[in-house]
Amino acid sequence: MASLRDEALHIHKVNKGKLTTNSKIPVRNAKDLSLAYSPGVAEPCKEIYERKETVYDYTMKGNMVAVVSDGSAVLGLGNIGPEAALPVMEGKSVLFKSFAGVDSFPICLNTHDIEEIVQTVKLMEPTFGGVNLEDIAAPNCFVIEERLKKETNIPIFHDDQHGTAIVTVAGLINALKLVGKSFSDIKVVANGAGAAGIAIIKLLYSFGVREMIMCDSKGAIFEDRPYGMNEVKENVAKFTNLAKKEGSLEEMLEDADVFIGVSVGGALTSDMVKKMNEDAIIFAMANPDPEIMPENAKEAGARVIGTGRSDFPNQVNNVLAFPGIFRGALDVRATRINEKMKVAAAEAIASLIGEDELNEDYVIPAPFDARVAPIVAKSVAQAAMESGVARIEVDPEEVAEKTRRLTQIDQ
Amino acid sequence: MASLRDEALHIHKVNKGKLTTNSKIPVRNAKDLSLAYSPGVAEPCKEIYERKETVYDYTMKGNMVAVVSDGSAVLGLGNIGPEAALPVMEGKSVLFKSFAGVDSFPICLNTHDIEEIVQTVKLMEPTFGGVNLEDIAAPNCFVIEERLKKETNIPIFHDDQHGTAIVTVAGLINALKLVGKSFSDIKVVANGAGAAGIAIIKLLYSFGVREMIMCDSKGAIFEDRPYGMNEVKENVAKFTNLAKKEGSLEEMLEDADVFIGVSVGGALTSDMVKKMNEDAIIFAMANPDPEIMPENAKEAGARVIGTGRSDFPNQVNNVLAFPGIFRGALDVRATRINEKMKVAAAEAIASLIGEDELNEDYVIPAPFDARVAPIVAKSVAQAAMESGVARIEVDPEEVAEKTRRLTQIDQ
Repeated sequence: MASLRDEALHIHKVNKGKLTTNSKIPVRNAKDLSLAYSPGVAEPCKEIYERKETVYDYTMKGNMVAVVSDGSAVLGLGNIGPEAALPVMEGKSVLFKSFAGVDSFPICLNTHDIEEIVQTVKLMEPTFGGVNLEDIAAPNCFVIEERLKKETNIPIFHDDQHGTAIVTVAGLINALKLVGKSFSDIKVVANGAGAAGIAIIKLLYSFGVREMIMCDSKGAIFEDRPYGMNEVKENVAKFTNLAKKEGSLEEMLEDADVFIGVSVGGALTSDMVKKMNEDAIIFAMANPDPEIMPENAKEAGARVIGTGRSDFPNQVNNVLAFPGIFRGALDVRATRINEKMKVAAAEAIASLIGEDELNEDYVIPAPFDARVAPIVAKSVAQAAMESGVARIEVDPEEVAEKTRRLTQIDQ
Repeated sequence: MASLRDEALHIHKVNKGKLTTNSKIPVRNAKDLSLAYSPGVAEPCKEIYERKETVYDYTMKGNMVAVVSDGSAVLGLGNIGPEAALPVMEGKSVLFKSFAGVDSFPICLNTHDIEEIVQTVKLMEPTFGGVNLEDIAAPNCFVIEERLKKETNIPIFHDDQHGTAIVTVAGLINALKLVGKSFSDIKVVANGAGAAGIAIIKLLYSFGVREMIMCDSKGAIFEDRPYGMNEVKENVAKFTNLAKKEGSLEEMLEDADVFIGVSVGGALTSDMVKKMNEDAIIFAMANPDPEIMPENAKEAGARVIGTGRSDFPNQVNNVLAFPGIFRGALDVRATRINEKMKVAAAEAIASLIGEDELNEDYVIPAPFDARVAPIVAKSVAQAAMESGVARIEVDPEEVAEKTRRLTQIDQ
């Protein structure tokens, strides 16, 4: 049997990549041409010129997401550049379509300059209903996202941050239910101050967690730490580790209830797990090797373990979040994806596992659970309308129904 | 029956525009996901990182054209902006696909600034195999195209210039055959110094025409004319109207063999046509109203008349050129579309009308002649290889065959 490597190379080569563009209106003859192109096309042009918002009615914009990357932090491969990043961005577009019927297009940019990336996306805004930032290294990704959120009127979503955060928190909602703890009482220690780590910490704050310590390679982060800080870490330090504890990850894990790993394989030892509270919850999401292997964490006393891998239970897979989130945001023509929409997405994902089926190995739905994208889309659309960022009102049930109709995954 | 306006608005609205993105590799289950996305996708990424040129093997780049516009000169509507231009750009993408199986994607930019447009396209270069500039007003379009040709390594083609020029010249090749004149002997007068006019004059020069006068609203253009000049006109004046004649369009038409109109409806009167030589050839391409109506031109003595309209014979329609040109350029991974490729395209289009069928009302093939794109693609690929701008060698017959296989128009 062919290896995964051979098979992956083969399907990419015979298909020449993965994404193609198609016409929704066939042009086979002169009549078709007169409607889809000249002279008929002048009519929607004139309508949009008169009332710009009708661009959502007459063009692809309302269902089109840009998948933007500079190739600086691709998978575990690092800064491999825009050309080598293209297979991942095409893949992302394929998932948008397959899971939730969202059209999208990869834009791989030949620059790492913040200003150039921001400007380019801003200039392309007329074409797109939303922007998914992907595989852009920290700390640039934070600045780019913040700038674009302020300077555009369409949803900007850095999936490596918020997609991961939403699915992690969804898993945590269920894990806490299982062990009988609540967000307001737990102590969380996160290792890794990159894009995902920061976003998880922020989303946990929205869920009411108040005792959090974030660690980087230099140990616990605290306000005005005199070494290894940057603007983003200073920001995080304003609402984490308020006691300004200094020390190693191991020291911080004393009495912790939850470990969030977005760092490197092997960063969490059995000894560290043993210092944690009873019913410890561990999300060890380094790829391909988690911070600790699930069996070792279990042996050391952990109760619930999630990883980024499909061959272990509780896979934290962003595909549970981003297709439905954009489906919901696009369907209400949202101007942004705000904190309430992210919270709604996490709760929607968690809600799919009923109390009777909830167990240590099942706190996160499977990536190909066809119920996920519809409920996420519905909840996100609802939250957008309730929080005032929707341009139009829709029936959330119709959003769910449309998502079910459009998904191409096995049901 | 519904009006064209109603019907055009309707099909744009029910379909929410015209373009959609699709996966060439379905992702229905975990196995699919492991190949198209994580972890398998890392393999093509690594290959491309090692050898950048394999981006053509493993991604969509080699069949993907950006359709870039700033919405400054859309159809006859003028500067309607990037949102209102989007239906036209989607339409262009639809034609690329329908006629020649070329994938493409509209990028409507929220700026008219030359530097910003150039920078944006350059930054997006990793994603695209070529760029079709569309509906960008003169003189910016000239500068943008020249800059991008110098500063990128993919074909840059401003269709409003070169598409129109290629089809016009194709028609002229056959018209001259019909009247028994040759490029080297004729006098050509062009009215309108915009994008298309300049490109036609340049391409005619490549075909050996030496007696040419270009007119604008101020009359004949000549070197160092003290009024109404710009860099582009100065450039044209270096190889046209070498006698530096000053005067009106009407005066210039004395003894002309060919009139090229890319100006405004009604600019050519019957009296003017009467001043032209016997067997006058007239391309009156202003839209929707030509410089002169064909019946009036005929009455005034003209022999062959072409327009931009589908309801008259000899329609100059760019769709005869751009799909096949990009098909050919992409299939040899061309670094540019050079003059030889344009000449080859014009000759290929003209060649489809045999001597036995050639007549006054049939010097240009019909837009839906399914033989056109394949022969253009083949000829352009061949010319690219012969002129040293092809990255790979292919069999031109296979390019033609592939084009025939991919076209979606009625055959």
